Amino acid sequence: MIVWKNLDAAEAYKKLQAVQDAVRLRAVLDKDRVAAYSAPMACGLRYNYAAKKVDGRVLQLLQELADEQQLVEKYRALLAGEIINTGENRKVLHHLARGQLGADVVFQGKNMRQFYEEQRQKIADFAAKVHAGEIRGSTGKPFSTVTQIGIGGSDLGPRALYLALENWAAKNGKKKMDAHFISNVDPDDGAAVIASLNPEETLFILVSKSGVTQETLANELFVKSFLKKAGLDPAKHMIAVTSETSPLANNPAYLASFYMDDFIGGRFSSSSAVGGAVISLAFGPEVFACFLSGAAESDKMALETDIRKNAALLDALIGVYERNVLGFPATAVLPYSQALSRFPAHLQQADMESNGKQVNRFGEPLSYATGPVVFGEPGTNGQHSFYQLLHQGTDIIPLQFIGFLENQTGEDVEVDGSTSQMKLRANLAAQIVAFAKGKDDENPNKRFPGERPSSLISGKQLTPEVLGALLAHFENKIMFQGFTWNVNSFDQEGVQLGKKLTKNVLAGDMDETLAAYAGILGL
Amino acid sequence: MIVWKNLDAAEAYKKLQAVQDAVRLRAVLDKDRVAAYSAPMACGLRYNYAAKKVDGRVLQLLQELADEQQLVEKYRALLAGEIINTGENRKVLHHLARGQLGADVVFQGKNMRQFYEEQRQKIADFAAKVHAGEIRGSTGKPFSTVTQIGIGGSDLGPRALYLALENWAAKNGKKKMDAHFISNVDPDDGAAVIASLNPEETLFILVSKSGVTQETLANELFVKSFLKKAGLDPAKHMIAVTSETSPLANNPAYLASFYMDDFIGGRFSSSSAVGGAVISLAFGPEVFACFLSGAAESDKMALETDIRKNAALLDALIGVYERNVLGFPATAVLPYSQALSRFPAHLQQADMESNGKQVNRFGEPLSYATGPVVFGEPGTNGQHSFYQLLHQGTDIIPLQFIGFLENQTGEDVEVDGSTSQMKLRANLAAQIVAFAKGKDDENPNKRFPGERPSSLISGKQLTPEVLGALLAHFENKIMFQGFTWNVNSFDQEGVQLGKKLTKNVLAGDMDETLAAYAGILGL
Repeated sequence: MIVWKNLDAAEAYKKLQAVQDAVRLRAVLDKDRVAAYSAPMACGLRYNYAAKKVDGRVLQLLQELADEQQLVEKYRALLAGEIINTGENRKVLHHLARGQLGADVVFQGKNMRQFYEEQRQKIADFAAKVHAGEIRGSTGKPFSTVTQIGIGGSDLGPRALYLALENWAAKNGKKKMDAHFISNVDPDDGAAVIASLNPEETLFILVSKSGVTQETLANELFVKSFLKKAGLDPAKHMIAVTSETSPLANNPAYLASFYMDDFIGGRFSSSSAVGGAVISLAFGPEVFACFLSGAAESDKMALETDIRKNAALLDALIGVYERNVLGFPATAVLPYSQALSRFPAHLQQADMESNGKQVNRFGEPLSYATGPVVFGEPGTNGQHSFYQLLHQGTDIIPLQFIGFLENQTGEDVEVDGSTSQMKLRANLAAQIVAFAKGKDDENPNKRFPGERPSSLISGKQLTPEVLGALLAHFENKIMFQGFTWNVNSFDQEGVQLGKKLTKNVLAGDMDETLAAYAGILGL
Repeated sequence: MIVWKNLDAAEAYKKLQAVQDAVRLRAVLDKDRVAAYSAPMACGLRYNYAAKKVDGRVLQLLQELADEQQLVEKYRALLAGEIINTGENRKVLHHLARGQLGADVVFQGKNMRQFYEEQRQKIADFAAKVHAGEIRGSTGKPFSTVTQIGIGGSDLGPRALYLALENWAAKNGKKKMDAHFISNVDPDDGAAVIASLNPEETLFILVSKSGVTQETLANELFVKSFLKKAGLDPAKHMIAVTSETSPLANNPAYLASFYMDDFIGGRFSSSSAVGGAVISLAFGPEVFACFLSGAAESDKMALETDIRKNAALLDALIGVYERNVLGFPATAVLPYSQALSRFPAHLQQADMESNGKQVNRFGEPLSYATGPVVFGEPGTNGQHSFYQLLHQGTDIIPLQFIGFLENQTGEDVEVDGSTSQMKLRANLAAQIVAFAKGKDDENPNKRFPGERPSSLISGKQLTPEVLGALLAHFENKIMFQGFTWNVNSFDQEGVQLGKKLTKNVLAGDMDETLAAYAGILGL
């Protein structure tokens, strides 16, 4: 039987609190530890945690915590279609968009895996017709460009995936269409994107699950007005990704509609039609299928109960240890890959929106810290930016490095006996050791304290499969952390108050304080 | 006489510690406070701090702290050319690149203000010739595109400024050339940018103060090899921005060279030739001059000793209060302007690299927190991403909002009775109040605790002058915080160890631990 209980009610957590910060990386980090502290991941990736502040004893207690909090059992319950998003009384089914690991999940007579698969297939068929020139714009020109209109989960994930695969696709002959994204309600966002487009050849994807997202609907009209001015028929230049019950569904204003539903949260929707439409159009449906297969492999590995063999679970537990026992307030995600330039921004949403909660899943206040601040930029860029604070600041920020043996384009140059790709990897290896071991110096200003923990996810190359595996790793990590903290990771009530007050401002229905701020802003 | 002393040696700081968290925003935030807690800034901007957790008593103590730590006097000493960057025995002169507020600063017989002005004028003349088609590429075609090669301060600031002004320039007939940026040593960064360029029409700007930055030199050769393959003469397609003593200076490999020096740190170099070359080429020298004049106005206002009339000083002091008395670990920068999409990334560098220090300016260890983690994304995008944690997470993250009454392009659309620009502003006003005042609810999951402090910088429109004023505000805030914490904000020793270990990896000169990590990464 599954028991949902708070972290501080767990026996293993009490034991962990007693351990405190037992590991000195300067003392223990050596080649044997680097070899031993490594867990397999999907698609040939490895998770190395030798530079984390854990040892056999801490790992044993984290295993006990995983068992006591029934983390894998809760994941199985999620896969089986139980109502895990209790606040909104919803199932949590994004894993089903990429595979099936449990029994059939049926809702109102509908097999949910089949439903997501049908939508994927519909998108694949539609994309194939666009690529073949069978579906064209209103003046008969084939579509060369796709532009997604969406915000939050309908923007950050798909955009991060597109950027991650753009160079890979160009190199491997998979680039079918350019993609652009319009998200912000600031009209300058849409205006700038639109100014770069040839409207006759552009297909827009309108993405809103509810069909009522204020920013997205404003941008839809912005785009439609632009299309009309160009003498085009908007209904022949726009498809919708939405839920079947939204006003956008089955609507003649769109060339086609593809569906997801309330069981896939926005920040977990990259595997659904939300990511599927733009990735299938830009790179072909088979690239999106490869991405899903990598994610599915990751999901399968997350069922393992031995934390040393389950990277997502281990990563989650070490994160909880760092947050709640060691007291570190933030985490940086540092991919040594320019293709992952917006991956940290997507993880920032996925993590902070999921676990930035102060009540447990029953609405009871918590007396321990939950989700940390997550931020990051690609290395080596970050090295010349905020790494100073990471090395020598007064707070310790745990680090998540990501690196690959090969780049995507195959282009490179040799300078001073090494290629740029070698320099990139050498920098990454050097940083891990610098953060962990530090350096003494007579000049205290040149002293590095070390003891700054990091982990490394490494792989051969960032391909669609690997990207899927990587994304699912972090999604599952976030899920396991939510279970450990006993929060509901799948709602986001914290966004509602701002929405309500915004409507009040626009309706002129304000108290004096809100009116004063509106006044400063000319409203 | 100036006395450099630690924060915890200040009497005013001890009194502040006794005050603790005295202000309940739910109780005190009203229209009178919104009207009263407002400080003027340069170029018509206003700094509103009504939603900060300060009151008359805290402000009085912050004033005492400012006076006791001699913050404005120290700024005057900096302007007078004293050796403020003691760790590297250097003056700190970025203010001189945009104006002069003290006596002449002369170094080795050179008037430094004149030197920076000469460089600006040389760039202006060069840009005018490029725009007039008098300077052309090696096949005789005029230059249509400029691409900056640089990393860290030679990338983030200039890139943020370019993006901030691109739409404004297009709207106002000032857009002369497209600009691109290559920064990462990951060869996929350069390869992707290069693939989008017409080499015959592209002018590259190589930016490295020392002339030995590993990433930048690798990218230089990458670009030169591309130019040669295209049958072009690299020396006719590249200019250098560097110091006069670097190997890049006066080098026939470049069409022209423009200079800065060791007295302008990378992260403060946007006002120098580092930002000047690309902004002058992209938008014309007069746009860059406007930017500098806005910054100069900001610098002048930062001389005011009354903290209520000196927004940079007040912003700095409130930040110290939040960090060291209230114990908040991070700060988010949230511009409600898509044009400022990379402004938070630039501030992240400027702030974290400057004040992420654990020793004071004499190298003595500090027993209090210094620079916080800084992160951010534009609103409204962030609202659909990490705001959940900001509203309902277990940590309080102080917020810095930025907003404008008008957008840059003039394009807009009306939906449901309001334009997108109105929606943008309404969201901003709503968020400030939601964060400060929160909301009670019977359902604890829908409860907002409030008491989450924010400030608002507002202005009419993001123009070059306003951008200069905004940048200088944050630069001066960072400087004042560094003075308050008694750290040297102008060196970055924390980046050196990684550089050294990287060289060791590439030379094969590694200990076993480093070799183990290098091995994972195929080195």
